[in-house]
Amino acid sequence: MIFATLLLSVGGLNAQVKEKSNAKNSKTFKIVFQMVSKDTADHNAMVRQLFNIQKLAPDTKLEVVCHGPGLTFIQKDKSLVLDKLNELADAKVDFVGCEFTMAQKNISRDQLMERCRTVPGGILEIVYKQNKGWSYIKAGY
Amino acid sequence: MIFATLLLSVGGLNAQVKEKSNAKNSKTFKIVFQMVSKDTADHNAMVRQLFNIQKLAPDTKLEVVCHGPGLTFIQKDKSLVLDKLNELADAKVDFVGCEFTMAQKNISRDQLMERCRTVPGGILEIVYKQNKGWSYIKAGY
Amino acid sequence: MIFATLLLSVGGLNAQVKEKSNAKNSKTFKIVFQMVSKDTADHNAMVRQLFNIQKLAPDTKLEVVCHGPGLTFIQKDKSLVLDKLNELADAKVDFVGCEFTMAQKNISRDQLMERCRTVPGGILEIVYKQNKGWSYIKAGY
Repeated sequence: MIFATLLLSVGGLNAQVKEKSNAKNSKTFKIVFQMVSKDTADHNAMVRQLFNIQKLAPDTKLEVVCHGPGLTFIQKDKSLVLDKLNELADAKVDFVGCEFTMAQKNISRDQLMERCRTVPGGILEIVYKQNKGWSYIKAGY
Repeated sequence: MIFATLLLSVGGLNAQVKEKSNAKNSKTFKIVFQMVSKDTADHNAMVRQLFNIQKLAPDTKLEVVCHGPGLTFIQKDKSLVLDKLNELADAKVDFVGCEFTMAQKNISRDQLMERCRTVPGGILEIVYKQNKGWSYIKAGY
Repeated sequence: MIFATLLLSVGGLNAQVKEKSNAKNSKTFKIVFQMVSKDTADHNAMVRQLFNIQKLAPDTKLEVVCHGPGLTFIQKDKSLVLDKLNELADAKVDFVGCEFTMAQKNISRDQLMERCRTVPGGILEIVYKQNKGWSYIKAGY
């Protein structure tokens, strides 16, 4: 059954990639994710999805904006997926923390993983990227 | 009170449909929903919303991409709304399952409702549709 | 630590506003939020985010569409943040209720805060605004 599913996947993948190559301006996909969950199951799902997307469409530009309870995703003393995040950062995934959340929760820059950046407002960052043609996906189940 | 609300609705409906006809390119609405919830209350709400949209704006193109725990929405042995989904499929709503989720959870194509299609990656399908001008709505409360 | 974070914020703010000024058509941001949560923690977060955005980018157009359980956000007898909502309405935030939800839950217009408007379908309102170039953000953690 797994084999059948994988065959199906490869067929489907061809179709989806072919479709993709016809997308407007032949541009690569650009996706900005909003992470607002502190639930580690949501964190694991996000990591899995990022790897899956890189497998299916390797040129996709990926950014994860973390704010509210979702800041824990990139917090050194809270996140359970830091190794994976560093691996994804190697592959140019852009992890972003919200400074409003940091100020509100009294979290300093050095409490976040090294390889992230911060922005004044997480939601404004997402909106800014949407205005530049990025697709928005809200993470979490 | 219900009567008043309905009157209000009809007035509002006229306004909204009039606005709609002024939308860019006079195109119909196109909405891609992301279903990631296994909660049957969310499934019921999704069904209700699809019917409501068809009532208000019958030409709207509708697609529901199911991935993660949301795949249960279109699983034969899990979904409690299959009859409604078939009715909606009759009305050309496009139900889509994610093959990554299927592989991860060892779910085969024949465990999904007949009248759906599958794609290699649910999120990429949503992003692909956004790039083609579809509006994204994340389902679930 | 708070001081450091604030310094960081101001630096980041400059960068983000500079970026913003380069956004296509030099337009202001326009954000339509979808509120579907009855959770008062989500309501408080929404209020805080609206104030934060107004602080960072005062020209941003803001709309909050409330439907399903999220209608409670603007219900006189349910909402715990009515004072804040009126303050935000003073600052031109547009609060919107869904008439489908009102009919379904038998809620009349006078049960909602004065300074909101209603639309036939909350989701269609969000989609309509997306078609007009507004950015969509789903509220709630």
